[in-house]
Amino acid sequence: MITHLEREIAEQPDVLSRLLRAETANIAAIAGAIKAANPRFVVIVARGSSDNAARYAQYALGALGDLYVGLATPSLTTIYDTTPNLAGALVIGISQSGHSLEPVRVLETARELGAALTLSITNDAESPLAKVADHHIALHAGPEQSLAATKTYTAQLMAIALLVGHLGAPDGWQAQIERVPGWVAQTLDMNRATRAAADRYTFMSHCVTLARGFNYCTGFELAIKLKELTYVVAEAYSSADFHHGPKAIVEPGFPLIAIAPQGKTLDTMTESIAAFEANGADIAIISNVHGLLERARLTLPIPAEVPEWLSPLVAVVPGQLLALGLSEARGIKVDQPRGLNKVTYTE
Amino acid sequence: MITHLEREIAEQPDVLSRLLRAETANIAAIAGAIKAANPRFVVIVARGSSDNAARYAQYALGALGDLYVGLATPSLTTIYDTTPNLAGALVIGISQSGHSLEPVRVLETARELGAALTLSITNDAESPLAKVADHHIALHAGPEQSLAATKTYTAQLMAIALLVGHLGAPDGWQAQIERVPGWVAQTLDMNRATRAAADRYTFMSHCVTLARGFNYCTGFELAIKLKELTYVVAEAYSSADFHHGPKAIVEPGFPLIAIAPQGKTLDTMTESIAAFEANGADIAIISNVHGLLERARLTLPIPAEVPEWLSPLVAVVPGQLLALGLSEARGIKVDQPRGLNKVTYTE
Repeated sequence: MITHLEREIAEQPDVLSRLLRAETANIAAIAGAIKAANPRFVVIVARGSSDNAARYAQYALGALGDLYVGLATPSLTTIYDTTPNLAGALVIGISQSGHSLEPVRVLETARELGAALTLSITNDAESPLAKVADHHIALHAGPEQSLAATKTYTAQLMAIALLVGHLGAPDGWQAQIERVPGWVAQTLDMNRATRAAADRYTFMSHCVTLARGFNYCTGFELAIKLKELTYVVAEAYSSADFHHGPKAIVEPGFPLIAIAPQGKTLDTMTESIAAFEANGADIAIISNVHGLLERARLTLPIPAEVPEWLSPLVAVVPGQLLALGLSEARGIKVDQPRGLNKVTYTE
Repeated sequence: MITHLEREIAEQPDVLSRLLRAETANIAAIAGAIKAANPRFVVIVARGSSDNAARYAQYALGALGDLYVGLATPSLTTIYDTTPNLAGALVIGISQSGHSLEPVRVLETARELGAALTLSITNDAESPLAKVADHHIALHAGPEQSLAATKTYTAQLMAIALLVGHLGAPDGWQAQIERVPGWVAQTLDMNRATRAAADRYTFMSHCVTLARGFNYCTGFELAIKLKELTYVVAEAYSSADFHHGPKAIVEPGFPLIAIAPQGKTLDTMTESIAAFEANGADIAIISNVHGLLERARLTLPIPAEVPEWLSPLVAVVPGQLLALGLSEARGIKVDQPRGLNKVTYTE
């Protein structure tokens, strides 16, 4: 019997196409409102996979939209009951369910604290988070029944990419973004062997994911998928941070998954991968760079034409398949991972 | 022969006293300049342990100083060569050496991008980072010869605490901060058995540190000490994030180190610890709450009177001793951990 997880991974091309059709006009209008409000900076409040979508926004809005984007520390609001000055900020809440208490609390007080505008991104357009913001983007992903977020994560990235398109992506961005559903379908196809190949990691107890820049989010998202679906202690690193201490943990056979597609971070990622190779690490690589993929024990390819700014929407897919395959190799029932509830009411 | 690491851990009370004497007036003047500049928000650029000091500033300046504090994504400047709008921001660079390229690059362009004020915090007052900022706080920690930061980390937190004191800490903060060197000395004394007790973790391959709010930084700093000094794959979690997926990794015997001193996060931390107990985790606790410490397999006490806002300056110390002891138990030469250089010239 097909699991929810497997079905929802496969649904992603359709979900992304639907989102493009349904929300392009709304997002263009929201981008107009953002330009008119001229925010000083952006604060995003999110947890779990949605927080990884926020990381994508940090780089995409920062590099292309000329906006400083910070991640919120929601416990300042919910536990310390303090009121950091949000004068002139665009405050964005991202939540699959829209029922998490933290983003709702932060967004409902943001305007009082001076925020220029609030925006929420949820899959449930009737949720409290959808209602509390000035503007709302719905994901149109359909019910996500797997406890692990897959289609709602790539849909969150698509919503952000559309926003970034209007706020400063290079010419031709619309044509590029229209191709994403096809690239995701192609990636699923190129990685048909990945699910079975995960078998070699059956007894892995821990690993590191390595990425930088736009795909820093992909490293975090892959780590969270591995933890929740396979119980492997996976930690995400920026290749820059990894040189400040933690690289001491790399010994021969140490498992590394690098996310290194074509783009401005390719040189620094290639250098980091070489340092891991020198220490005898066991390396898997998600990339569209042929010469780099050849150096991996496990190659996780994505299409060659994917531009860097959209690559996180595609590069996460081989990681999802790897986590799915490894959960099967380890005999874990992915639709009922232990100790997890779909909606987390964090206070 | 005593190692650099051991000596520098022991020096901390003296370093903190010296910093209090030497920088109190300068920091009061800087706080005045910050109030006059009335920044819209704060961006901090740092890597490694300095980034954990930045996390302390996020909560301390956010909860007490009414300022939204975000961590920078320096690769936007150094790799993507983009110019996020920093209009009205206070931009702070923190680096032990002051020679890391990233904070220097970010600070030297910050004023052109509209920053209201720049500030650097370094141990080397003659370093490039010290020179490039409008204002500078020197740590007066003396040369740090161990590759693992200890005394410069607690000194960075002290510099931030002094700044926060002037920007909004409650009445009586000066008297509290004066007591920190004594509390650190007392903690070293209370944890004389910790170094030997680390023996029981000799064969631990991975662990999780758990904290929230002010001590979120302590969890990260302890994780980095364990990774660089003992090669244990240690990952820091907020107790809030941990419920969004990763808690699936907790099985009987899973090693957890919780940082849970008296304060506003104590209830949520106690609840999280109970959830780990229910799953049979092996729990160590850093705290000054007697009833909570009793529930741990390893108790790591700090003095009862330490107030929450200053607890990160004290709570990290038992963690340093645990990492030191575990490095000895595992036969690692702490002054020469593999693959590390003291100054990291990240680009």
